[in-house]
Amino acid sequence: MAAAPTQAPPQTTARLVEKHRPVLDRALEAIRSREYWSPYPEHPKAYGEEHGSLSAAEGKAAFDALLGTRFDLDQPGTDGWVAGEVSPYGPKLGTEYPHADAGVLLPAMRAAMPAWRDAGPEVRAAVCLEVLARINARSHEFAHAVMHTSGQAYLMAMQAGGPHAQDRGLEAVAYAFAEQSRTPEAAEWNKPQGKRDPLRLRKEFTPVPRGVSLLIGCNTFPTWNGYPGLFASLATGNPVLVKPHPRAVLPLAMTVRVAREVLAEAGFDPNLVALAAERDGEGIAKELALRPEVRIIDYTGSTSFGDWLEANARQAQVFTEKAGVNTIVVDSTDDYRGMLGNLAFSLSLYSGQMCTTPQNLLIPRDGIDTDAGHKSYDEVVSDLATAVDKLLGDDQRAVALLGAIVNPGVRERLEGAAELGEVALASRAVEHPEFPEATVRTPVIVKLDGGAPESESVCMSECFGPVSFAVAVESTEAAVELLRRTIRHRGAMTVGAYTTSPDAERLVEEACLEECAQLSLNLTGGVYVNQTAAFSDFHGSGGNPAANAALCDGAFVASRFRVVEVRRPA
Amino acid sequence: MAAAPTQAPPQTTARLVEKHRPVLDRALEAIRSREYWSPYPEHPKAYGEEHGSLSAAEGKAAFDALLGTRFDLDQPGTDGWVAGEVSPYGPKLGTEYPHADAGVLLPAMRAAMPAWRDAGPEVRAAVCLEVLARINARSHEFAHAVMHTSGQAYLMAMQAGGPHAQDRGLEAVAYAFAEQSRTPEAAEWNKPQGKRDPLRLRKEFTPVPRGVSLLIGCNTFPTWNGYPGLFASLATGNPVLVKPHPRAVLPLAMTVRVAREVLAEAGFDPNLVALAAERDGEGIAKELALRPEVRIIDYTGSTSFGDWLEANARQAQVFTEKAGVNTIVVDSTDDYRGMLGNLAFSLSLYSGQMCTTPQNLLIPRDGIDTDAGHKSYDEVVSDLATAVDKLLGDDQRAVALLGAIVNPGVRERLEGAAELGEVALASRAVEHPEFPEATVRTPVIVKLDGGAPESESVCMSECFGPVSFAVAVESTEAAVELLRRTIRHRGAMTVGAYTTSPDAERLVEEACLEECAQLSLNLTGGVYVNQTAAFSDFHGSGGNPAANAALCDGAFVASRFRVVEVRRPA
Repeated sequence: MAAAPTQAPPQTTARLVEKHRPVLDRALEAIRSREYWSPYPEHPKAYGEEHGSLSAAEGKAAFDALLGTRFDLDQPGTDGWVAGEVSPYGPKLGTEYPHADAGVLLPAMRAAMPAWRDAGPEVRAAVCLEVLARINARSHEFAHAVMHTSGQAYLMAMQAGGPHAQDRGLEAVAYAFAEQSRTPEAAEWNKPQGKRDPLRLRKEFTPVPRGVSLLIGCNTFPTWNGYPGLFASLATGNPVLVKPHPRAVLPLAMTVRVAREVLAEAGFDPNLVALAAERDGEGIAKELALRPEVRIIDYTGSTSFGDWLEANARQAQVFTEKAGVNTIVVDSTDDYRGMLGNLAFSLSLYSGQMCTTPQNLLIPRDGIDTDAGHKSYDEVVSDLATAVDKLLGDDQRAVALLGAIVNPGVRERLEGAAELGEVALASRAVEHPEFPEATVRTPVIVKLDGGAPESESVCMSECFGPVSFAVAVESTEAAVELLRRTIRHRGAMTVGAYTTSPDAERLVEEACLEECAQLSLNLTGGVYVNQTAAFSDFHGSGGNPAANAALCDGAFVASRFRVVEVRRPA
Repeated sequence: MAAAPTQAPPQTTARLVEKHRPVLDRALEAIRSREYWSPYPEHPKAYGEEHGSLSAAEGKAAFDALLGTRFDLDQPGTDGWVAGEVSPYGPKLGTEYPHADAGVLLPAMRAAMPAWRDAGPEVRAAVCLEVLARINARSHEFAHAVMHTSGQAYLMAMQAGGPHAQDRGLEAVAYAFAEQSRTPEAAEWNKPQGKRDPLRLRKEFTPVPRGVSLLIGCNTFPTWNGYPGLFASLATGNPVLVKPHPRAVLPLAMTVRVAREVLAEAGFDPNLVALAAERDGEGIAKELALRPEVRIIDYTGSTSFGDWLEANARQAQVFTEKAGVNTIVVDSTDDYRGMLGNLAFSLSLYSGQMCTTPQNLLIPRDGIDTDAGHKSYDEVVSDLATAVDKLLGDDQRAVALLGAIVNPGVRERLEGAAELGEVALASRAVEHPEFPEATVRTPVIVKLDGGAPESESVCMSECFGPVSFAVAVESTEAAVELLRRTIRHRGAMTVGAYTTSPDAERLVEEACLEECAQLSLNLTGGVYVNQTAAFSDFHGSGGNPAANAALCDGAFVASRFRVVEVRRPA
């Protein structure tokens, strides 16, 4: 039996609904139209006292104040404290987080469910939007936390870790609300019976949560990859236990703290959102994932653990984003310079440490037609290398684009890449002007012969980090065949293609439709294959081995709750 | 690579859309409002030449013409013929069905996918509605096929196996259409860039199928339980392989034939729907379920095989309806006579062979308050026994309600029930006036002491068939506790309760919300706990061990397809 539900003060929740309903409605419209929209400005200067938020300087100060302190969340079952984050830029964070006794914490989280369920979809959405609004106001503070756990450069951490992550959270709330509101709260049902009186029933429909939702965070995008699952589950009535990556605890601990504050203020049990930090090497995700209370899991990370979760956490709905191998098919272009610049940026952004970064560039052995004349395979590769070099020629600019190498594993892969084939562009170390201990490296491009059997095994494995392969293929048809095999066996978060030929375009498009991968065609301007925008782009497809879910669609929210019907004679 | 898509004649598909779009729109409205609605009349006399459909006599003749014949479907990979159905009413059907070589049939089904995908959600919905309309016109023929495979009485086979099953199919088509149409086919995305030109992309969104969908049919409701999955998958672009229960092939073989006809006429590959009949004891479901082409499975049947599918068919989305233990909590009533009549009907309908039939009647040991005065536990049980006796007193009427015992397993369970406790109402054999070989039995009611440990194991197991237990419990609170345990550990498709006390009502309601089960309160008239109406009632909740899916909701359709996005500069 659950404890007696805490009653939310109706005034507070009504105020929250009044405050946030317009944004929710606008988000609902955006996911229907897929037009550009965001309520959270991405420009760093849009934040500051005059906007009711923390300025860059205030955000930095707030972040600094968290370092080396105990991050208390007042959670039940806290049985110790864990610390250990080291910034990819060098400094130790020194922040201590509560370690939880799951046997105490999980029942407390379950006990919080009935009142949260009774609050209904609209109040839950409003509470989630208040959490997001408060996080948004602290975007600069979060930016530092994301930067110093993921290694992202500040501007990227500010945008992708801030407003863009908040967008993805809001998008999930909108989907969750839409899904729960498809069925009315109540209905009258009158079935005619010929000459007899009709049968009359009154029916009530209540969305009910599945149980505790476990969020297993990742190192590179703790907020961006974490918010969709967190908010989708919370908005559908489930308590959320956040298990961050041991190297990227702070951004999610801050998120948990804001959520607990807002929940408590709105009259709900703060234990609806809790943190499960772990000691280094403790591996609590495996243990938590099998707890009977855990009925939903959101995971971003390695394929091996994702596969393990899907196979073993059978009591839960498991949403995974795993590894993939992203391909660019280069057939032809009418903007050679634009293509090279766009690709150079895609390979460099955050040192290729995005699940969406292209890895395999498939280029016909006989070269390609471009607006600058026919270019041989070697010319395309060396022109791309030059474009990357130029983009990253200035150290200050390079650092702002590359960020830092997130962990030693990535550095080792990068260093080993030169042995995989002929190096077309060597990686170089860049000195960080502010953080001399940061590992900053430019990308490596390695040439592979697409016909050689040894190439197949190289380009069919994910080589996460700033490593890409310029694969010489017989033809565009051969490129599309390799693309199909790659998606089918290894999965892909993104596919890109450059072509001026309607036939080649159709071939690539058909491959992506059949193998289920998201395709960007002929990007030559300021949109990059590795970026997706909430409310408009789907991140992943959920239909190939890279991920079993897409951000965000109906399938991402629909099975996080069930509808219980109570019917009685009218 | 897929074969070149067959092109559908646009005129044909446009005509189908024009013909069926109003029904689709009305269905979309019904699933939103949850009001009573059906386009398929349930009255047997609503069918006949003047309505463009088969009359009762014509349906009988059409059914008779199928007996003892070869039911050819012109499927690729047919490597033999199987037969073996014996009506629960006695006669052998003698119809022979094609046996399929899955290695030939499945690739042919996959090859049919691209053209079906390209047709888009609206055309797919229209084709599905044409299939349903043709099945509807033959409801009397289907009624005989359902009657002589499931053992349902004719009127029930005509309604539940006919229009009600068609309703559930249409409901799934409506959900599938709604889900696929949430995202527009295309969108323009313009992101402002301050003083610079906005970023502009054109995005196209295509729902793409997962792969072959396998329908594993059941013996008791081949069409009603089969149509939701079949039509949900077909409408979302997936080919459907229908593996009927070996005792109930004909209704689904007829369905497959109609679907293949309509698909071919509309210019699509008929292999989008195919039959996989099996030799007795061949167990092909297990083999088919693990085929890599199979990406969706819909299953109704035993818990053990359902659990096996969920655990092993990891390449597929698995939707299961398994066994459960349905409870009625009897606390009090202001219509004692109505309650008894309603319960008597529920226990008798189709000899209790419905997944929704109540099994455990929890009655306080000290009796209950009613409009006819206080009734002791013994009085309630014996009054209920009398009500069942009266309802089934006339053999003709009994047969029309009970139908036949579907298989020897049910008969054996019924015969063994007397040993489980004190028999309050003994089962009796009823002679069928038309089919002397039919096994017709009235229900047995067995008394159990809810406090005795040996009772717990009896009432916590599903005893499928016309067996129910009148369990004496300490109090309504104790009843609700047992109800909770039962749902949590055994699952429940339905829960019923009778009470005039707001407190007791709240207790039962809270238990159903927390344990996730569908609740019917105080049914005393012509609506029964075992019946649910498409477009309004949810069948199962998907949130307890009896089923991982509900008919029908967003979750039932959302993961049957994925959305592939293609974006390019505008």
